Amino acid sequence: MTQAFSFELKARDGAARRGEILTQRGAIRTPAFMPVGTAATVKAMYPGQVRDLGADIVLGNTYHLMLRPGAERIDRLGGLHSFMNWPHPILTDSGGFQVMSLSTLRSLNEHGVTFKSHVDGAKYEMTPERSIEIQCLLGADIQMQLDECIALPADAARIEAAMELSLRWAERCKQAFGERPQQALFGIVQGGDHAGLRERSADTLSAMNLKGYAIGGLAVGEPQDVMLAMLEATCPRLPAEKPRYLMGVGTPDDLLKAVARGVDMFDCVMPTRAGRHGQAFTRFGRINLRNARHADDPRPLDPTSSCPAASQYSRAYLHHLVRSNEALGGMLLTWNNLAYYQDLMQGARSAIEDGVFGLYCESTSEAWARGDLPAL
Amino acid sequence: MTQAFSFELKARDGAARRGEILTQRGAIRTPAFMPVGTAATVKAMYPGQVRDLGADIVLGNTYHLMLRPGAERIDRLGGLHSFMNWPHPILTDSGGFQVMSLSTLRSLNEHGVTFKSHVDGAKYEMTPERSIEIQCLLGADIQMQLDECIALPADAARIEAAMELSLRWAERCKQAFGERPQQALFGIVQGGDHAGLRERSADTLSAMNLKGYAIGGLAVGEPQDVMLAMLEATCPRLPAEKPRYLMGVGTPDDLLKAVARGVDMFDCVMPTRAGRHGQAFTRFGRINLRNARHADDPRPLDPTSSCPAASQYSRAYLHHLVRSNEALGGMLLTWNNLAYYQDLMQGARSAIEDGVFGLYCESTSEAWARGDLPAL
Repeated sequence: MTQAFSFELKARDGAARRGEILTQRGAIRTPAFMPVGTAATVKAMYPGQVRDLGADIVLGNTYHLMLRPGAERIDRLGGLHSFMNWPHPILTDSGGFQVMSLSTLRSLNEHGVTFKSHVDGAKYEMTPERSIEIQCLLGADIQMQLDECIALPADAARIEAAMELSLRWAERCKQAFGERPQQALFGIVQGGDHAGLRERSADTLSAMNLKGYAIGGLAVGEPQDVMLAMLEATCPRLPAEKPRYLMGVGTPDDLLKAVARGVDMFDCVMPTRAGRHGQAFTRFGRINLRNARHADDPRPLDPTSSCPAASQYSRAYLHHLVRSNEALGGMLLTWNNLAYYQDLMQGARSAIEDGVFGLYCESTSEAWARGDLPAL
Repeated sequence: MTQAFSFELKARDGAARRGEILTQRGAIRTPAFMPVGTAATVKAMYPGQVRDLGADIVLGNTYHLMLRPGAERIDRLGGLHSFMNWPHPILTDSGGFQVMSLSTLRSLNEHGVTFKSHVDGAKYEMTPERSIEIQCLLGADIQMQLDECIALPADAARIEAAMELSLRWAERCKQAFGERPQQALFGIVQGGDHAGLRERSADTLSAMNLKGYAIGGLAVGEPQDVMLAMLEATCPRLPAEKPRYLMGVGTPDDLLKAVARGVDMFDCVMPTRAGRHGQAFTRFGRINLRNARHADDPRPLDPTSSCPAASQYSRAYLHHLVRSNEALGGMLLTWNNLAYYQDLMQGARSAIEDGVFGLYCESTSEAWARGDLPAL
């Protein structure tokens, strides 16, 4: 018998939660950071490496996969897991984020969104029903409702309209999704930076009895304290026994502060994108390897790290690779960054189990604040 | 006591040779293909992966490393082996190839070559003495004399002058190299497509009693049969008890035909560069993954390959990665190609030991000629 989708809370420490999502493709330990595999690849990483870092689940992007290679093609080839050689859980977004990020390439009405492909200019229509159809063709274990995500700042009427449209689309997605015990459809709370709208969105979605809830439309231009205030308004209104996913967030500091407010799942391109741009996340904070101070530094990024990219290559070598635009530079820094994010989440899970999550956040932040090792 | 540089012939099959070069950093099984690590990195490969494919030695490029990050810097950082995290043997070229490839950016006279850096426009003088000095700073196990390499076709007087200059530079390199029992300086036979010049060059270099001999100035524009004729003129004039290295060559077919004529060592950017451009070397010949025929093909490149890149990813997925310019496409195809080259050389070594090298070449060529699997 195949494992039905389920979520179990194992420990709490204040509002922070340690849980486990069970799926037919394995367990997801929460709090979880999900590496982003936009085009069916976590950029510059072999799938086995991603797994070895402790990632239980990765993301695929519905919009990008719809354009290329196409959802029907991936279905014919046996689904996204087989296609990208990742037999573990996969979450797909719905295309809602592209409603914001590609706002110049799309038109939107009650029925759905029409995109003009950035690959070949062809037109694609994305409705709530088509989004779910695509996510089912991909075979995603966790699927997201189509929503209208808008950038901040925005005026209240605009935010409210997008939130209300997202709720109507959630209903249509639920209908289209139907009964799929092995998979989950998550609703997405919208409402911008208005606590009242966030609460109304959370309450309405909660009543729909979905298998999990995401918090969308954050980290889209607002300061961190606004984002945290929105989490404080939203998380308590969501059912405690369902997983909560803060979409597209964020820095290591964002992650810890969101976990402290009851969030269970995260995804963000930050560790992979920063790696390709010469930035390393470490327990000393963020380090820019392009900086000349590293040119003659024989020390590794962090000799205590479990990741070979952090412990077995000198900063001088990483500096050289980054300055020379060598592929290995991006490969090593992406590896280091994903390792750092996974280790940070593993630390959070242990700290919650041990009831010391507050101390964990404090000592981690203090280490970031002390900054990098003195230059040689 | 540190291992002095030595070469031992273990088996012969016709003119083909199976040997072993011993160095202070380990043995090099010949015939050997040496992956190219121009800028202190075999492009898009982790060093451990290169080693795991069976590579005993890699190349570094003197000219590129001189410009960036600089030979003196690498020396301060503990040498090239430590810098690039490759504790095994390294061969460095001398800059002579760039005398040809960067002919618009340099001026040459008896004393040496002056390059204008393609990185920052600064001027660098490369003399035979400076080339050896740089290679010693890098700590290369096998070092090459500075030579004048010229493109073909070229007129006889021009070829002869470059060959004679290269011989004078070989003497100066030998003086500069001095006594270094743990390292080797190789001379480079020049002479273009003139058997008589090749013979004179080989005879003069042989009399210099260097630790190995390279054959340069081939695969620079001439047809394969001309290259093979030059090997037939040259190899028999070189001392049998010294390793022979055909520089910058070539296709898998070039390699087998050169081994059959007595060559022991090879380097070429072909497997790595082709990989970054969507090409896979396989026992079915060369496959272009950009081709639309692969878009829906769930079969791996070669299910019998020992390399995960060849056996665990579908052609459809590789096609998608290549078309989407995803880093993983170049990573997987480079990995596949280097694995193919290393396996080809391992097959050659076994076949020579077993006295069946002719059959090995025949069956390998037949498989290439049959071409790729029929499209689905």
